[in-house]
Amino acid sequence: MKIPPVKGTRDFYPAEMAVRNYIIDGWKKVSIRNGFEEFDSPILEHLQMYTQKSGAEIVEQLFSFKDRGDRDLALIPEMTPSLARMVNQKINSLPKPIKWFSVPRLFRAERPQKGRLREFFQWNIDIIGTDSIAADAEIIFTTLDYLQYAGLSENDVVVKVSSRKLLAAFLKSLSIAENDLPGMYAMLDKKPKMPADTFAAVLNEKLSDKDRASKILAFMETDSLEKIKKSLGVNQKIDDAINELLEHHRLLNEMGVGRFYKFDPGIVRGLAYYTGIVFEVHAVGGELRAICGGGRYDNLLKDFGGPDIPAVGMGFGDCVLEILLREKGLLDKHIKKPELDYFVVSDKSFEENIFFDLVAKLRRNGFITDFSYKTDNLSKQLKTASEKNAKKCIIISKEYSDSKQIIVKDMATGEQQTIPIDKFMDGLINSK
Amino acid sequence: MKIPPVKGTRDFYPAEMAVRNYIIDGWKKVSIRNGFEEFDSPILEHLQMYTQKSGAEIVEQLFSFKDRGDRDLALIPEMTPSLARMVNQKINSLPKPIKWFSVPRLFRAERPQKGRLREFFQWNIDIIGTDSIAADAEIIFTTLDYLQYAGLSENDVVVKVSSRKLLAAFLKSLSIAENDLPGMYAMLDKKPKMPADTFAAVLNEKLSDKDRASKILAFMETDSLEKIKKSLGVNQKIDDAINELLEHHRLLNEMGVGRFYKFDPGIVRGLAYYTGIVFEVHAVGGELRAICGGGRYDNLLKDFGGPDIPAVGMGFGDCVLEILLREKGLLDKHIKKPELDYFVVSDKSFEENIFFDLVAKLRRNGFITDFSYKTDNLSKQLKTASEKNAKKCIIISKEYSDSKQIIVKDMATGEQQTIPIDKFMDGLINSK
Repeated sequence: MKIPPVKGTRDFYPAEMAVRNYIIDGWKKVSIRNGFEEFDSPILEHLQMYTQKSGAEIVEQLFSFKDRGDRDLALIPEMTPSLARMVNQKINSLPKPIKWFSVPRLFRAERPQKGRLREFFQWNIDIIGTDSIAADAEIIFTTLDYLQYAGLSENDVVVKVSSRKLLAAFLKSLSIAENDLPGMYAMLDKKPKMPADTFAAVLNEKLSDKDRASKILAFMETDSLEKIKKSLGVNQKIDDAINELLEHHRLLNEMGVGRFYKFDPGIVRGLAYYTGIVFEVHAVGGELRAICGGGRYDNLLKDFGGPDIPAVGMGFGDCVLEILLREKGLLDKHIKKPELDYFVVSDKSFEENIFFDLVAKLRRNGFITDFSYKTDNLSKQLKTASEKNAKKCIIISKEYSDSKQIIVKDMATGEQQTIPIDKFMDGLINSK
Repeated sequence: MKIPPVKGTRDFYPAEMAVRNYIIDGWKKVSIRNGFEEFDSPILEHLQMYTQKSGAEIVEQLFSFKDRGDRDLALIPEMTPSLARMVNQKINSLPKPIKWFSVPRLFRAERPQKGRLREFFQWNIDIIGTDSIAADAEIIFTTLDYLQYAGLSENDVVVKVSSRKLLAAFLKSLSIAENDLPGMYAMLDKKPKMPADTFAAVLNEKLSDKDRASKILAFMETDSLEKIKKSLGVNQKIDDAINELLEHHRLLNEMGVGRFYKFDPGIVRGLAYYTGIVFEVHAVGGELRAICGGGRYDNLLKDFGGPDIPAVGMGFGDCVLEILLREKGLLDKHIKKPELDYFVVSDKSFEENIFFDLVAKLRRNGFITDFSYKTDNLSKQLKTASEKNAKKCIIISKEYSDSKQIIVKDMATGEQQTIPIDKFMDGLINSK
């Protein structure tokens, strides 16, 4: 009769829920102060939304099923297609640029690993309707604003930045055809996931040309824009992409986060839809997968049947972040143990008709209040109050039967005050 | 290429998201002040969890599928089985009584109707580990605490209360067998959903006994406990159930919410697992389905392979509530239009290296700040600031190039202050 939880999912008991709320509340707070408005999509979308565009990898790895109406549905594995659908649906009535954030629950039918589960939360921020490089910088600033808010510094995290425009121009300069680019992106994105030898072999096989393969390897390992500029010589498209990266870096410096920046042409991003600057945040020296990533995707809205409108965004899962915050000791100190304002105790039975009147009035006036279902033993109740982290106890005992007075005990100092119940109640209502 | 949303789901654009957040934030706030701690389950559970216990109706109406590991999974249609699973998993380490709340996203593969969608949110509160009738009362008090918090009074909503114990004792007194009770509950629960004639006919057919059918009909339409007591005569189990209802009502009176109470033996609840007092909240005189409902379910944990531990709970969906709050004019006045603390405008291009420095510092210091990606036209930017509900604008213009001063404009009064940028920045950091 005992049924286990589903593989790759998490149960959020109150302690785990407090961590989840701490992370998500931080994401929301930082999104709002950076000018983003919250939206959300359903968790179910038509499967076609993913078969159509996101590349084969993601489609193989999602949960999908036929409903009773014979529709192919999927549990959403990412937010961007839903965002594109929603924006396209109301494209004419939405003021632009659109700056939206969301924290969807996402699903991937992959083998669960450390930092990668089948069900997780992902912070998304997107700016739609401007091709300004300032928006690209703002997406990264907002990401870093959260990471700093969470207590991480440039000693902990690095933003690795590259450009699909640069990569495309470079690959085309090696006579790789436009149509082959999405496949190349997906393959190059796997470089960090395999040993250098294996990757080189895969690349050689794909290109059947050792010279081009070694040029691509060298490109992906270059550690500065200056070196790229020198090594690639004159090519207008490459120059444009480099100048865009330089301006982007300048803006991030102006925003005060340049110290987190690292140019890294090894950053490709697997999804086919990126078109411009792409980035990933990694733990410094860590072996964790990317903490988050994103970039410009100027064609996606059009691909989903909408107008030709530029867009840039970022997605940030909760699993890797939680591991990192825990490793750095940044979780426990921010997560408060739940507290009660009042715990009401009594050695009278509930028959004493003031007990629930008082509990109810405290709660209705906004005080976090609790009590024990067993009113036989006062000291047991006071112990429960301590365990539940109550700031104050109200004791309904002899003083109440004698003269309608209650005792208010400060649980930190132990100080006790005896107050007529009417006076206490009046004070309560006036404290609103 | 345009893909529609999935039938029976909702897109939450920022305006709809604000309504959802207002509702869910209220549920959370009221739960916490009533001493509940938040938890959550995965959205996926093993299908067996529902086939095993919840009765045929719910199983027919859920989304389920086989995953690649050939496991039968379901999108959760209700929270209580997941709660039972989670509590059972940690039964020995959890301090009791357990008072938990959650706001899961739930899924039902039914025909969408007004107030009933395929994907919705549901507030759940549960108290596990006490058979105190005070817990039954507290569940209803907490429900009403929210309804009053949302602005509804006894003129708007009524809590209809009955008892499965009473109904079971009554049905057994008519020689209906224990085994037939779950089927009877499911059928009797449908009474409000069909015309009186139809229901009477269904009942006659089910019992093949007009006398018992008319007794059941009469029972379900009795409007006071006193009349039930009189009409049913002496039967210990019926008496016990009635006394429990009387004590429950007394406690709700003491909690100050007796005016919402109505005894109504027509309230059955469809799910098989209820064992004691059950209730539903309805709009007064409304034709909407129940706003929420719940009751005692003392056997469920045991049924899910755990120990024999009593429990009581309530579930409250967002769809009917939203319709009701909107009808009563209680939504718009509580939902604030998003505001900005600052909007930074400039007739310099972004080249002026103070612009993003200032935007970033404002944001990092917790001020909700935005700007326009086009800095060509000052008055256009000020118009955008107004549209975005900015409290203050910071103008970087001639004064800045001349003497490093910025203008801070109060958007409500129109008042303008010219301040040296350094002084403003210092003030900002000290305002933290």
